Amino acid sequence: MTTHRYRTHTCGALTADDAGNNVRLSGWVHRIRDHGGLLFIDLRDNYGITQCVIDPDSAAFADAEKVRSEWVLRIDGEVKLRDAAAVNTNIATGGIEIFIREIEVLSVAKELPLPVFGDAEYPEDIRLRYRFLDLRREKLHANILKRTKVISAMRAGMGDAGFTEFSTPILTASSPEGARDFLVPSRIHPGKFFALPQAPQQYKQLLMVAGFDRYFQVAPCFRDEDPRADRLPGEFYQLDLEMSFVTQEDVWNTVEPVITNVFEKFADGKRVTKGWKRIPYWEAIRKYGSDKPDLRNPIEMADTTPWFRGSGFKVFANQIEADDKVQVWAIPAKNKVGAEPIGRAFCDRMNAWAQGQGQPGLGYIFFKDGQGSGPIAKNIGEERTNAIRDQLGLVDGDAVFFVCGVPRAFYKFAGEARNKVGFDLDLVDTEQFSLCWVVDFPFYEWNEEEKRIDFAHNPFSMPQGGLEALNTDSPLELLAYQYDAVCNGYEIASGSIRNQEPETMVKAFELTGKSREEVEEQFGGLYRAFQYGAPPHGGAAFGIDRIVMLLCGVQNLREITAFPMNQQAEDLLMGAPSPASAKQMRELSIRLNVQS
Amino acid sequence: MTTHRYRTHTCGALTADDAGNNVRLSGWVHRIRDHGGLLFIDLRDNYGITQCVIDPDSAAFADAEKVRSEWVLRIDGEVKLRDAAAVNTNIATGGIEIFIREIEVLSVAKELPLPVFGDAEYPEDIRLRYRFLDLRREKLHANILKRTKVISAMRAGMGDAGFTEFSTPILTASSPEGARDFLVPSRIHPGKFFALPQAPQQYKQLLMVAGFDRYFQVAPCFRDEDPRADRLPGEFYQLDLEMSFVTQEDVWNTVEPVITNVFEKFADGKRVTKGWKRIPYWEAIRKYGSDKPDLRNPIEMADTTPWFRGSGFKVFANQIEADDKVQVWAIPAKNKVGAEPIGRAFCDRMNAWAQGQGQPGLGYIFFKDGQGSGPIAKNIGEERTNAIRDQLGLVDGDAVFFVCGVPRAFYKFAGEARNKVGFDLDLVDTEQFSLCWVVDFPFYEWNEEEKRIDFAHNPFSMPQGGLEALNTDSPLELLAYQYDAVCNGYEIASGSIRNQEPETMVKAFELTGKSREEVEEQFGGLYRAFQYGAPPHGGAAFGIDRIVMLLCGVQNLREITAFPMNQQAEDLLMGAPSPASAKQMRELSIRLNVQS
Repeated sequence: MTTHRYRTHTCGALTADDAGNNVRLSGWVHRIRDHGGLLFIDLRDNYGITQCVIDPDSAAFADAEKVRSEWVLRIDGEVKLRDAAAVNTNIATGGIEIFIREIEVLSVAKELPLPVFGDAEYPEDIRLRYRFLDLRREKLHANILKRTKVISAMRAGMGDAGFTEFSTPILTASSPEGARDFLVPSRIHPGKFFALPQAPQQYKQLLMVAGFDRYFQVAPCFRDEDPRADRLPGEFYQLDLEMSFVTQEDVWNTVEPVITNVFEKFADGKRVTKGWKRIPYWEAIRKYGSDKPDLRNPIEMADTTPWFRGSGFKVFANQIEADDKVQVWAIPAKNKVGAEPIGRAFCDRMNAWAQGQGQPGLGYIFFKDGQGSGPIAKNIGEERTNAIRDQLGLVDGDAVFFVCGVPRAFYKFAGEARNKVGFDLDLVDTEQFSLCWVVDFPFYEWNEEEKRIDFAHNPFSMPQGGLEALNTDSPLELLAYQYDAVCNGYEIASGSIRNQEPETMVKAFELTGKSREEVEEQFGGLYRAFQYGAPPHGGAAFGIDRIVMLLCGVQNLREITAFPMNQQAEDLLMGAPSPASAKQMRELSIRLNVQS
Repeated sequence: MTTHRYRTHTCGALTADDAGNNVRLSGWVHRIRDHGGLLFIDLRDNYGITQCVIDPDSAAFADAEKVRSEWVLRIDGEVKLRDAAAVNTNIATGGIEIFIREIEVLSVAKELPLPVFGDAEYPEDIRLRYRFLDLRREKLHANILKRTKVISAMRAGMGDAGFTEFSTPILTASSPEGARDFLVPSRIHPGKFFALPQAPQQYKQLLMVAGFDRYFQVAPCFRDEDPRADRLPGEFYQLDLEMSFVTQEDVWNTVEPVITNVFEKFADGKRVTKGWKRIPYWEAIRKYGSDKPDLRNPIEMADTTPWFRGSGFKVFANQIEADDKVQVWAIPAKNKVGAEPIGRAFCDRMNAWAQGQGQPGLGYIFFKDGQGSGPIAKNIGEERTNAIRDQLGLVDGDAVFFVCGVPRAFYKFAGEARNKVGFDLDLVDTEQFSLCWVVDFPFYEWNEEEKRIDFAHNPFSMPQGGLEALNTDSPLELLAYQYDAVCNGYEIASGSIRNQEPETMVKAFELTGKSREEVEEQFGGLYRAFQYGAPPHGGAAFGIDRIVMLLCGVQNLREITAFPMNQQAEDLLMGAPSPASAKQMRELSIRLNVQS
C-alpha cells in the first residue's frame, strides 16, 4: 500500500493507540523549541497540533534546523508515547509525539508581520491585511468554526421544524423604505440600477403568496450604512423565515425551540432560557426602560407616583401637580444575599453618574436599621418611605432610585440606570443566555422631524384590529402584530404577522402620507400579489452575526467574520473598493462625479 | 380545546384514518366543479390538495357559490370516506373528502391573468410578471421544491464528508480574469467600486492558506454576461469546495460519492453512474470530439487514417499526403440489436446534415450482405473496407462515418456528428445520468485574437511538472491538474489543484505576458498569502443550476428558479433595474452617461 502524498493522519488524530506506527503528517510549524539539542516542532493543521521531535543524530536534523514558524511541512516519523511527565492532557494528541524521520518543506514563509502563536493584540490594519495569518490564530480560528457550526445547527433545526431553504435574488429592486441601498448599475439598461437586498422581506412574502410554506434562508443582506463595531459595512446575515396560515403565537412556538436548541448547543455550560417570556412592549418599557430588556438583571421598575404626589419632596411633587403625565418610577435594588449593605456612597455615585449623563440627578432611598435614609426619605417622611419599601419588597441593605418626569422622555435613561445598578451591584447573573419575546409593538410612531405619523417598525406588519382599527382608532395608540426576540439586552430577531390585505395596506400607508398610487409604484410586486389570493402569513428574521457574537462572547464583528472590511469600509486583503476602468464605466453608462 | 385559527391539518394530510373527524383546512381554491347541484371545491396548499364538497341544503352553500379560483379559504367540515368509485389513488388525500360546514374567505382573487390549474403554456412576460401565480402551478412548484431538496442534500452530503460551510464576501474586489463583473459604487470611497464575486475562488484559497480545511459553500456567483436559456442574467449558484493537503485523486474520491448520492436521490428511477470514468482531455477529444462527452452515447470514435493513406479515395488521400497532421476519424455506428439495418438513406441524410453545418459532407460506409457499401467503400476497395470494419468491430446492419482534416479544426464537428448519429439511431440510453471526470486539461491555449499564449482554464491551476515544466517544456504541450465533471454531455463541475507556489504563479503568468508587478497588483491578496506558508490545495465548483435542470429534465433555467429575470435582464415582478434618485447618485459620486 502506498502512503498518501501528504498525510496519513491529521494533526489532531493521533493518540496512544497509534504508538509504534509510522505516520505522515502535514501542517504548519506552530512553534519550534530547542531543548538540550532536541528540536521540538509543534505541527498544526485545522484539526489540531501534534508535537514532533528530532535529535541531532537524525539524518533529517539539518532540514529541521532550517524550518521557521508557519512554514508548511510534511513530516514522516514514528508515533511514540510521551514520558508521563510530558503528557499534555489539554490536547487530544497530548499523549504522544512523532519521532521525525523525514521532513519535506511544502511551503516556506517570509518573516511574519503578525505572529500566529500566542494571543498578543495586533492593530486592526495588520490583522486585516494579513487576515490569512490572523485566521490561523487559535481564538479567531475557533470563533470562525463556531460560526459555521451555529449556522449549520440553525439550518438543521429549521429543517427539522419542517422549513425549506429557498434562495431569493441578490440583484433586485431598490427598496423605498428602510436604510440606504447598495446600487448596481445595469449594463443592459443604461441609466438603471439594481439594488442589493436589505432583507428578502418582499420575496419571502411573495413565496407565501406563491403557495409555498415554512420558508427559511440564511440570507445575505446589504445596507450601505456607516460602519461601527457591531455593524459591519456592507453585508450581514440573517436567519430569515416565514410561514403561512399562522398567528403570531405559531411563529413563536415554532421558532423558539429551534433557537433555544442552538443556544444550548453552543452555550458552553451557560444556562439558556426555556419558555421565553412574552412581554408586551409597553410593559417592557415600564419594567425595564427598554424594548430590549436584559432579563439577567432581576430589577423590575415600578410606578411610585402616588407616594410623591403632595409629598414634602417638592422637586417631584411640583412636577406631578403641574402635569398629570408625570410619573415617578422606582428602580429597586434588592441587594445580593450576604453582600455589603447598599449605602450612601453607592447611591451618591449613581447620582453623580446620572448627572454625567446630562440628568438632574438620581434620587434615592437606602434602607438600614429598619428605616429609609437619604434626602428623599427625609423629605417625604417615614410613612411614605415605608410604603415605598413595602410596595417594592425591600429590606435593610437594599436601596431604590427614582426617576421623575414624563415617561416617554425618561424611560431610556431609567433603563440605563437599571442596567448600571444591576451590573455595579453584581446583581446580573452573566452565566446565562436570557431570552424573551417583546410583543405588541406600537404600529405607528410620531416622526418629529417630518411632523407626520410613520411606521414604528415594519410597514408590512398587520395592525391589531386590522382595517377597522385603522379607520377608527387613534393611530398612535394602535398596536401591531409585531415582535422582537431579545437576548441579554440585545435584539436578536424581529418579526411580524404581515398585512396581506391590499386595502388595509393602502390605508396603513395613507396614514403615513403615501397615496395609493405611491404604494402601487413602490411596492408593486407585493401589492399586486395580494390581489390574487394572499394567505395570512408571518415570520421573523434572526440576526446571525449578533447571535454568534453572543455565543462567542465577543463585542466586535471582526472576531466572528472571516473576511471583514475595516471601519472605513475597505477590504484591505483584496484591495476593495478600487477604481473601475474607463471601459467598465462606459459599459455601465456611468461616469464619476467626484468632488476634488 | 380551541381549534387553530386557520387549520388543524394541511391539505395533504387527511386519509381514511381521519374519517368522521371535524377538521379545519386553509388553502387556495384550486378548482370548482358543479356536479348535479353538489359543489366540489379542491382546496390546495403547499402540501397537497383536498376535495371539499357541499350540498345546496347546507347553510354555507351561499358562501360556497361565491368563491372563485385562487381565493384563499378556511373550510371547516367533517372528513368522510369517498365512494369507492370516486377514490383517487394518485393523491395522498384521494380516499376522503370534506363535507363543508363553514367557509371563511381569507383573501379574494381578481380575475387571473394566468390560470394556476392546468399546464397550459403562457408567454414568458406574463409568467414573470405574475410569478406568484406561475409558482403555484404544479410542475413549477414541484421543480422549485426539488431544487431546494437537491441543495439541502448537497449540504448534508458535504457535511457528512467532513466539509464546513463558510460564507465568503459578496462585496469584494473586481477580478481581472474571467467574465465581466457587476460593479457596486462605494459611497464612502468616491470614485471606487466593489465588485460582486464571479466565484469565491480567491477567498476559498485564502481559507486554505488560513489553515482551514474542507471548505464548501452554496455560493451565489455573479457574471454580467448576456442572458441565454441556460445562463440567467446576473446570479447563479455553485457548490464550491476546496481541500488542503490533497492530490487531484483525493478531490475526485471525496466529492464523487457526494454528487452520485445526490443524483441517485433525485434520479426518479434513472440509472446513475457509480465509479466515474476519468478520461484524459485529449482522449475525450479523440473518442468523443468533446471535453463534455455524453457517455450515454456508446459511440467511440477511432483514428482510421492508415486505411485512407494512399487509397483510391483521393479526397482524403490527397489531404493526408499534403499534411502529416491530417487524420481521418471514424464515427462507428453499431446498430441496435433487432433494429432495421442502417442503409444508404440514413447515411445520405447524415451527409446532407453535415453540409447544412457548413461541412463538405460526411463520408460513410454501411455494411450489408457481408460487405461495405457506398462511395468510399467503392473507392478504397474491399480489403481496406474490411480492415476498417474489423478495426471498429462492425457487422452487417452497421455503418461508419468519416471526418478528415486537422483534428484541432474538425473535432467539434466530429463530436456533433457523433451526437447526432447516436440520437438519430436511438443508440443513446436516456434513462440514465452518465457521469465522468475529464482530466489532464491543457494548461495553456493559443489566443488567436491577441496572438499570445493564454490560460486554457484557470490561471490558479498547478501545471503538471510545476515550475520546472514551465521553464523547460513547450507551453502549449503542458497539462494542468485541472478537471471537469460531466453529466450527459454537460459540464457540471470544474476544478483543479491550485498553484500555491508564488514563483510558479509568477512564471505561469509571465508566459501569458503578465509581469510580476501585474500579478502582485491584480492578485495581491492571494500572491501575498502564498508567501506565508501555503498548503498544497485543490477543489472544484459544481454548477447547481445545471444539476437541478438535469434532475428536473428541463432546458430553461426559468423552470428551476423561483424569481428569474427575463431574457432582457429585467425583474418584471419587482421592477428592477430602475432609475436611481439624484440623491442616491450624488451620494455614490456618479452621474449617468447615457447616449440618447
